[in-house]
Amino acid sequence: MLKNPHVAVLGVTGAVGQELLAILEERKFPFASLKMLASARSAGRDMQFMDRTYKIEEATPDSFKGIDLVFAGGSISKALASHAVKAGAVVVDNTSAFRMDPEVPLVIPEINPGDIAKHKGIIANPNCSTIIALVPLWPIHKVAKIKRIIAATYQAASGAGAKAMEELKLQTQDFLAGRPVKKEVLPHQIAFNVFSHNSKIGADGYNEEEVKMVKETKKIFHDDAIQITATCVRVPVLRAHSEALYVETEKPLSPDEARELLAKAPGVKVIDDREKNYFPMPLETTGQDDIWVGRLRVDPTVKNGLAMFVSGDQIRKGAATNAVQIAEILLKQQ
Amino acid sequence: MLKNPHVAVLGVTGAVGQELLAILEERKFPFASLKMLASARSAGRDMQFMDRTYKIEEATPDSFKGIDLVFAGGSISKALASHAVKAGAVVVDNTSAFRMDPEVPLVIPEINPGDIAKHKGIIANPNCSTIIALVPLWPIHKVAKIKRIIAATYQAASGAGAKAMEELKLQTQDFLAGRPVKKEVLPHQIAFNVFSHNSKIGADGYNEEEVKMVKETKKIFHDDAIQITATCVRVPVLRAHSEALYVETEKPLSPDEARELLAKAPGVKVIDDREKNYFPMPLETTGQDDIWVGRLRVDPTVKNGLAMFVSGDQIRKGAATNAVQIAEILLKQQ
Repeated sequence: MLKNPHVAVLGVTGAVGQELLAILEERKFPFASLKMLASARSAGRDMQFMDRTYKIEEATPDSFKGIDLVFAGGSISKALASHAVKAGAVVVDNTSAFRMDPEVPLVIPEINPGDIAKHKGIIANPNCSTIIALVPLWPIHKVAKIKRIIAATYQAASGAGAKAMEELKLQTQDFLAGRPVKKEVLPHQIAFNVFSHNSKIGADGYNEEEVKMVKETKKIFHDDAIQITATCVRVPVLRAHSEALYVETEKPLSPDEARELLAKAPGVKVIDDREKNYFPMPLETTGQDDIWVGRLRVDPTVKNGLAMFVSGDQIRKGAATNAVQIAEILLKQQ
Repeated sequence: MLKNPHVAVLGVTGAVGQELLAILEERKFPFASLKMLASARSAGRDMQFMDRTYKIEEATPDSFKGIDLVFAGGSISKALASHAVKAGAVVVDNTSAFRMDPEVPLVIPEINPGDIAKHKGIIANPNCSTIIALVPLWPIHKVAKIKRIIAATYQAASGAGAKAMEELKLQTQDFLAGRPVKKEVLPHQIAFNVFSHNSKIGADGYNEEEVKMVKETKKIFHDDAIQITATCVRVPVLRAHSEALYVETEKPLSPDEARELLAKAPGVKVIDDREKNYFPMPLETTGQDDIWVGRLRVDPTVKNGLAMFVSGDQIRKGAATNAVQIAEILLKQQ
């Protein structure tokens, strides 16, 4: 790819699209031109970015002429990605549409950057809960081989988009004022409540978010034998996800050894102060790119058991940052 | 014990003390007289209960003359319980002070009511997270023998008392208004945040709340072999706790079989509607005595694995209701 590509951002008005622009600026991502694409609803609106005013254009199959790189998100991505590829662009896709396609690499740059080169036009960005669990688990897996992962998530409203974040704020205000609470985006009240993740539930009782964690982990780790089970839960937090993780490893690994590994691992920050009772919290990982990990301790109920608690910004490393990191590697490779 | 005891409520001004009064009224608990006891700070204040005005008295070693039954809570309980016993009263204690004392029965009436008769003056009420997990796990344990429990909790502010509930509301208002957030009760901001439970952490990295779940489960189930590990986390919910639970059983038990068992179990309500994505939520278990259980599904990553999500009112069944149930059995026994 050109060192200075013509870039399109598809779904630019969403929470991830907006963060993506901020990260392109922060990381000084090189681009010859930038095209802002969204559904018909947002087309025609102005958008400010780096001292310029862009006109948002309606995304159509013909939007990608002359475009080298597309950051794709939103429900329109599934229908349009193939048109972008036909027009000669590489698509870094933030949706779940292509993740399990065997032709599409699913990449966390800290883990499997080598998969990027195998792309045939589309590279998929993993689910946010998957990324936030796997960035800190990978250094452990490399050294001690994880056989089984048990996860319970504490997922922010942001995972359901900018409107869900607004809904959390509005519901909170209404609840505190004793007014009836309106539910328009999420199926249940999120203010002062927690509920099982709002994705569809399959015949086995697992919701789609949990199934994504299971399938994506095997693909990203290139390890079909790894066992994973998850319980995905929404909590009244605005935009960073947290997870309680239990792993069982083939080789023993002490919490001290894990802490040492993780302290050196890219994309990870160890926050594990038992004396001050200070561990990863979504309020503090909001706006950060690192996944924070702490509460590292032995799980004594199983052979080679290790427990931990992780937190990471769902919109940044869980989506936009990871996509931009993939694109940075693409630029270097070609 | 007399059918119509003279009752004292120690720590009556706390969140649990207040709920206890409400439950005594609701359940028409018989009493000849009622004494309201608290620390010196609250003594002298008036308290309305069942159309009468009571004067709150300072709890001292001499407060228990003529008292048959004490519901004890708050930090003063540890020092005063033995004085109540010497004065001839039976103490149902809500604190952690006596729970692991081998002379003190630790009771959940749905599980081990028989232990009540073994008391030597004090009967302990278990920790709220323990009660909320064990009420639905007991019917499964009886039939399939649980070998291992893995828990991740979603604990409300109420577990840290009425002041923590107020702090959650105040912090939420301040945060939404863009004002600085004050932390006076809990160590970290709870509004729009989650954090590792605010109890002291031991050398093995487990906090006291987690250790309580481990030790109390073995004692209540009369099963030293059962393995338990927990991650206890505070979430911005006012007063009901939720828990993601994974169990491994000796005998296989399908989710359908578990659902059937639980539907018949006392103190449990099955809320498990996959089609409507409707499962236990703390907003709905608030004010309820039953522990709600749902998301029953196979954990396919281990032999005989079963996963579920539970929620229960921390102040009611997690504390006050359980204590009143114990007292009701005491009245019948003697």
